[in-house]
Amino acid sequence: MTSPAGRRKHGRPTISDVAALAGVSAGAVSKVFNGTGRISPPTAERVREAARKLNWTPNPAAIALRTSRAQAIGLVLTSSSPVPEVGAANVGLISGIESLLSPREYGLLLNVFLTGHHDESAFYRSLAERQRMDGVILTNSVVGDTRFDLMRDLGVPAVLVGTPWKPGVVDYIDADPPSAGIPETVDHLVGLGHRDVAFVSGPAGFVLPNIRREAFTARLAHHGLTPHSVSSVGYSPAAAAEETSRLLDVAAPPTAILYGTDTMAIAGMRTIQSRGLRVPEDVSVVGFEGLEVGEWVDPQLTTVQRFAFQRGRAAAAKLLGLLGETIEEDVPLEKPVLIVRQSTAPPRSR
Amino acid sequence: MTSPAGRRKHGRPTISDVAALAGVSAGAVSKVFNGTGRISPPTAERVREAARKLNWTPNPAAIALRTSRAQAIGLVLTSSSPVPEVGAANVGLISGIESLLSPREYGLLLNVFLTGHHDESAFYRSLAERQRMDGVILTNSVVGDTRFDLMRDLGVPAVLVGTPWKPGVVDYIDADPPSAGIPETVDHLVGLGHRDVAFVSGPAGFVLPNIRREAFTARLAHHGLTPHSVSSVGYSPAAAAEETSRLLDVAAPPTAILYGTDTMAIAGMRTIQSRGLRVPEDVSVVGFEGLEVGEWVDPQLTTVQRFAFQRGRAAAAKLLGLLGETIEEDVPLEKPVLIVRQSTAPPRSR
Repeated sequence: MTSPAGRRKHGRPTISDVAALAGVSAGAVSKVFNGTGRISPPTAERVREAARKLNWTPNPAAIALRTSRAQAIGLVLTSSSPVPEVGAANVGLISGIESLLSPREYGLLLNVFLTGHHDESAFYRSLAERQRMDGVILTNSVVGDTRFDLMRDLGVPAVLVGTPWKPGVVDYIDADPPSAGIPETVDHLVGLGHRDVAFVSGPAGFVLPNIRREAFTARLAHHGLTPHSVSSVGYSPAAAAEETSRLLDVAAPPTAILYGTDTMAIAGMRTIQSRGLRVPEDVSVVGFEGLEVGEWVDPQLTTVQRFAFQRGRAAAAKLLGLLGETIEEDVPLEKPVLIVRQSTAPPRSR
Repeated sequence: MTSPAGRRKHGRPTISDVAALAGVSAGAVSKVFNGTGRISPPTAERVREAARKLNWTPNPAAIALRTSRAQAIGLVLTSSSPVPEVGAANVGLISGIESLLSPREYGLLLNVFLTGHHDESAFYRSLAERQRMDGVILTNSVVGDTRFDLMRDLGVPAVLVGTPWKPGVVDYIDADPPSAGIPETVDHLVGLGHRDVAFVSGPAGFVLPNIRREAFTARLAHHGLTPHSVSSVGYSPAAAAEETSRLLDVAAPPTAILYGTDTMAIAGMRTIQSRGLRVPEDVSVVGFEGLEVGEWVDPQLTTVQRFAFQRGRAAAAKLLGLLGETIEEDVPLEKPVLIVRQSTAPPRSR
């Protein structure tokens, strides 16, 4: 220990000083601070302790040159509201992603993208140029989505949570099939005796809402029925409430309404109740996501459990795999399942 | 335009080629790609367009050396559950932070820290050494918190959301006073006629729960009352449900219960109702945060609105200010306010 201490008097400590003090090779020190290779936790701690004692820190730019790794992945959420909101379903998604990143000391670089407020392409380009993330998880794919080509051009590995608008453009994670949950919901409502079922779905132009609307209509046709109505509104409680009011104002309102998300369904229930109608006696309601909040509302919400945590975890596993990491954890992705609670019941005879 | 095109044949394009094509100085190109200085959006777009045409990208490590900026801030959340959960209140916080970061093309590097699963100090050290963030927003301060000294040692600007355990250790954002909302809640319950009020509060050892427990007891004393009970449990619905069961099992249960968070309060309400008791007729319930979900449950939750979005926004503004950014946006931080809904009422006479 005389050597490093002696060296410190004459200049900045070097990686060799740290290696000597910790009793390891300089390469091992490099691995500890670059997060590359495999170093046992006790050895890594000894290296860090030596670095602390010598007040040595690696040159970050040198690390970047050596490793070309940001040790972070990006998550891009889009929000059509005036503020960059992180929706309730995204909480599960983020938690699932973190469940794989956190143990690897990867950071999650969150970017909430306000639709129409940024030059989206310039934004991604800037992120890639700055080497701020090693790969990116994308959400909310739209028909004609250009982000996948852009990511390929930029050399940034990408995984989509959801289904892309055409095959082969990007790696992705989704239920198999992506419409899973819709046929089961239609069967449940028709089985209860509903003939006038409406679908207040997510925005037009988005891939998954499109797929779900088609599956909804197809499954009703399977039962010899046509939809009471299918509407496309923004992913927001306010938009769902407004559309619900419109549906209840028609001469023959639906006896059951399926909503694009749980929060939309809850806003729909409140709208129905605010008019003096009862859920499910007057109108049955079904949500789509399986958020915990569905158990807390009155009546408890019938919904499709889509396992947001698992989706996030599976997306992170796929992306880390593309980055060359070994994933030893289990990353199951269960098929979405209809959870029947209190918000659905047979329709009253008219 | 001949010159840059000619140069490309003979080697990699340079920053001067991009400057020439865009009709600006090399310094202006540098500013656009470093995110430093002030460049008008049209000029910036012209520079990016020129870079695209020439297929020129800046050397990221060179940028790091020049600017020493990650153009990202960190947000550290802690979770005591087995998985890295992002709590409901954190959604508002993240959205508020993003409302200032997103327009500046700053990223938010999210790190969910599992209490007891990491060497926390080594983790922060690693983040700082890798120059992955320019500053950090911390949450969930504990008594004796060592993170602030660590951040100072590492040279990483930090802002705490909450109140530090002793004055002067870190910049912070909190309500003034940090106990705001507690006296108002006690006054509301006592005004309704409650004499046996319990507080199921957050974990022992955390700063804000400590402050709130003291404020609760002090305000009851102001009315000549003592608490029915004050308990410290983990920030989780399950812990709140368990503690509620315990309170209802005693010979003289409380007639009103204040909970440390809204989700704890909702879990408490469900526990009360599952025993055949009614809220608020048998037990009044008050939450603490003001999440939107409080409007959706039955009965609607009386709670203290604490404006998580504003807290996030104010913390981001303070941190960006420490980093030398000019904040022109409004960053109000309103005083927490009691929202009386349906979950509180006069106690039944015994």
